[in-house]
Amino acid sequence: MIRVAISGAAGRMGRCLIQAICQQEGVMLGAVSEDPNSVSIGIDAGELVGVGSLQIPIVSNLNESKENFDLLIDFTQPEASLANLALCREYGKAMVIGTTGFTPTQYQQIVTAANNIPIVLAPNMSIGVNLCLNLLEIAARVLGDTADVEIIEAHHRHKLDAPSGTALRMGEVVAQTLGWEFKQSSVCEQQKLNGERSKKSIGFSSLRAGDIIGEHTVMFVVEGERVEISHKASNRMIFALGALRASQWVIRKSPGLYDMQDVLGLS
Amino acid sequence: MIRVAISGAAGRMGRCLIQAICQQEGVMLGAVSEDPNSVSIGIDAGELVGVGSLQIPIVSNLNESKENFDLLIDFTQPEASLANLALCREYGKAMVIGTTGFTPTQYQQIVTAANNIPIVLAPNMSIGVNLCLNLLEIAARVLGDTADVEIIEAHHRHKLDAPSGTALRMGEVVAQTLGWEFKQSSVCEQQKLNGERSKKSIGFSSLRAGDIIGEHTVMFVVEGERVEISHKASNRMIFALGALRASQWVIRKSPGLYDMQDVLGLS
Amino acid sequence: MIRVAISGAAGRMGRCLIQAICQQEGVMLGAVSEDPNSVSIGIDAGELVGVGSLQIPIVSNLNESKENFDLLIDFTQPEASLANLALCREYGKAMVIGTTGFTPTQYQQIVTAANNIPIVLAPNMSIGVNLCLNLLEIAARVLGDTADVEIIEAHHRHKLDAPSGTALRMGEVVAQTLGWEFKQSSVCEQQKLNGERSKKSIGFSSLRAGDIIGEHTVMFVVEGERVEISHKASNRMIFALGALRASQWVIRKSPGLYDMQDVLGLS
Amino acid sequence: MIRVAISGAAGRMGRCLIQAICQQEGVMLGAVSEDPNSVSIGIDAGELVGVGSLQIPIVSNLNESKENFDLLIDFTQPEASLANLALCREYGKAMVIGTTGFTPTQYQQIVTAANNIPIVLAPNMSIGVNLCLNLLEIAARVLGDTADVEIIEAHHRHKLDAPSGTALRMGEVVAQTLGWEFKQSSVCEQQKLNGERSKKSIGFSSLRAGDIIGEHTVMFVVEGERVEISHKASNRMIFALGALRASQWVIRKSPGLYDMQDVLGLS
Repeated sequence: MIRVAISGAAGRMGRCLIQAICQQEGVMLGAVSEDPNSVSIGIDAGELVGVGSLQIPIVSNLNESKENFDLLIDFTQPEASLANLALCREYGKAMVIGTTGFTPTQYQQIVTAANNIPIVLAPNMSIGVNLCLNLLEIAARVLGDTADVEIIEAHHRHKLDAPSGTALRMGEVVAQTLGWEFKQSSVCEQQKLNGERSKKSIGFSSLRAGDIIGEHTVMFVVEGERVEISHKASNRMIFALGALRASQWVIRKSPGLYDMQDVLGLS
Repeated sequence: MIRVAISGAAGRMGRCLIQAICQQEGVMLGAVSEDPNSVSIGIDAGELVGVGSLQIPIVSNLNESKENFDLLIDFTQPEASLANLALCREYGKAMVIGTTGFTPTQYQQIVTAANNIPIVLAPNMSIGVNLCLNLLEIAARVLGDTADVEIIEAHHRHKLDAPSGTALRMGEVVAQTLGWEFKQSSVCEQQKLNGERSKKSIGFSSLRAGDIIGEHTVMFVVEGERVEISHKASNRMIFALGALRASQWVIRKSPGLYDMQDVLGLS
Repeated sequence: MIRVAISGAAGRMGRCLIQAICQQEGVMLGAVSEDPNSVSIGIDAGELVGVGSLQIPIVSNLNESKENFDLLIDFTQPEASLANLALCREYGKAMVIGTTGFTPTQYQQIVTAANNIPIVLAPNMSIGVNLCLNLLEIAARVLGDTADVEIIEAHHRHKLDAPSGTALRMGEVVAQTLGWEFKQSSVCEQQKLNGERSKKSIGFSSLRAGDIIGEHTVMFVVEGERVEISHKASNRMIFALGALRASQWVIRKSPGLYDMQDVLGLS
Repeated sequence: MIRVAISGAAGRMGRCLIQAICQQEGVMLGAVSEDPNSVSIGIDAGELVGVGSLQIPIVSNLNESKENFDLLIDFTQPEASLANLALCREYGKAMVIGTTGFTPTQYQQIVTAANNIPIVLAPNMSIGVNLCLNLLEIAARVLGDTADVEIIEAHHRHKLDAPSGTALRMGEVVAQTLGWEFKQSSVCEQQKLNGERSKKSIGFSSLRAGDIIGEHTVMFVVEGERVEISHKASNRMIFALGALRASQWVIRKSPGLYDMQDVLGLS
């Protein structure tokens, strides 16, 4: 039974993680923390998500609860994550980090800490998305660079960036596998207007509509046949479930820096 | 039994039309013509498409064969079509015109001729595409302007224009139904990069890959649900089959200018 | 501003309806009722759904609140619905009924009441599904009975019946339009095993997987082209939103029995 | 430059293979054979497929042309294939065999011949289908046996068997990977009618419509997300292209029996 701590417990991901831990076997909630300025300090984690009291109040510093957990799941901000990283390193706790936006210098601190503790670092914890990244690599290798590659993604109307980070990552994997320079290989609509499709290019199409949570399709088309690999998310809980799978995997590992491909046995 | 003449008989559409007429009941080939400079003049129509002799040689002017047909199907160029129009008007033959690119003045000549003969004029004769245009209009009317509309089309890698003419026509139908100004309502990828989706806009995504003949999907997304209307072409013969359906419909009509919506009973 | 009463307020649909009314303009909550034995009697409707007090306690009989509403939305059981029907008829309230399972005799009581009050009765209130039923009818009429029709539906793993009621209704609409006898026209997998597809038949495929809320696709395939009409539900709130659209429409109508096709202007 | 012989040259696959060889670099046609009773004996291979004379007449026994080829592609019948196998073994020619329906005893003869010559044996030579079989194995391994698996396939209205052989093979791969007994794990529509979906089962849905060449989708659904792997064939030429890829691979190999997974570097 792994005792898990959650930082950023009152945020959307924090709440999802608490709920996921309550439902899953093999893991239990050990500690929860939030920013010292948060109004949620002191509130019980179970009350927070509506499952009844768990007798685990939200603390402002995990130092107070360090006896109560084996592993920390952290989806917060770079600075908060690095503070937690120092604490985990000091007390020998494993970490699963879903925070994004680290600078190269900050990233280097994680690499260094991984000499002492096992860490999974992944910008997208969805098991399905990470599986698809691996499938794309194989498809690209087998179909080769005569295939025309198109990536289509759909998200809700409020999403600001296009293409999505996941779509770009998918394109990178294909480009790397085929030895295409990624910047050169991607094509926006505007370029398509000027004539025939360029070889060795990846087309991106971004749909923004309604409340679509997230859909990605990569299409490999060669003469006479087409292979499509799609991922559809219907619930944001999948990121929490992926983090728990990473937790159950990394707790048995030696110190080191791992990603979701490692967790899923795909590397 | 309708006796059909085909102009531009040796071109891709001409050959498809000859084949379609040979396979379909209720129609028979009456005459075939080509440009006087074509090397195919004098060749038998059946030999041309590999179905054995039909005893119908390709002529350079339909005047020679005017006793042999009731209706002309014309997928050629504007000038050739207008010459054939004059002939059909003079001899009281019905016409099905799939030629595109008429100037407003040329178009006016067709309108005038339609005082004397029944004419179907349609830039895309596919029954499925024309059905979809009608379905789109109904969907737009029912779902209203809270729906986010996305149009995705896919064609082979050699297609030069994007979005496809059919995709643009689909967008126009939706915009007209909802009272949106079409130019304003359409969005290319570039505009999407700058933040939230605009209301009352139609997104276009164009995929170019392999040998895809033609696929169009229009997605209407509102909170909690999505309606999608898709057309997939797997064979260019559908344009010939649509022209034959138009022929069998228009031959029984009074003089007038009709479109595929009329043919399909959708107007 | 329409004052709406909700019966079965503490059930899943009741709660969705209360939430939907709070979010939508032009409607306000007027009264809420539940079965007299329900533990929720006396609880405030707003507290029930977590939006703060609305000062509208759940009553056991709408008679107590009859001054406070203009229209009743009823998704309950046949007996409860008929009791509410009598009350609405007596006091001249409009009704929107989403209850299913009425016997022919019970249905006749609704028909009779509709002489006095306007009623919308619909087994599925989703705007998208009802739109699709209309699109299917048009597609069937235009493509005719040479089309091969396949209906594919997907729902969560716990759904007990297959094909879904909505899929069967879709099949009925196609069969009626084409003059096919529905029982004869439908095909299960077993029959498909015995050779070529029968003409004038409708194939049904039912997928059951994970937590899929509800997806339906109807495919019309003719030589060379395919038209697909799809509906995808991502949130059960759509039934509440459809009921509100029905409410806003029916409140302006003369007494009579209407369905969602009437509400959507499709009949 | 590999000199390729084609047996069954006048059949549908034989003609496709001749055309594919004429278009592809690195291979050239060396010899063509047909059944001694075929009317095509003596006809030139190029004339047969309409590309002009290749000076390669169809022979009734490849023995006559044994100096002219390095490798034989054989899509015929078991008896004919085994006769060709004996000849290839005697003269040290590589083989690519796409024939199906070998008995275990016949299969054993192929195994034995593979001690002397390199042979690729595959019931489906499509590169895309064989790629998908590998992707399915990985997806099953990563998503594990909590996933609900549904396989949907669509083919033209004349196809007699359902599910398709490819769909069954896809199901076998998933079942083997997850340690499910295949017969137990598959579910037809009838079984679905009796209640909740069984765990560790694979659902099959077969669509039969129009002129669909072949589409397969495998859906893995877990709580909150879905991964779909699809293959769509638009042209039967893909089997010929796959056979040529196998030819170019196997010609460089030591004697042995290989399959398409080997050819594609996936085993």
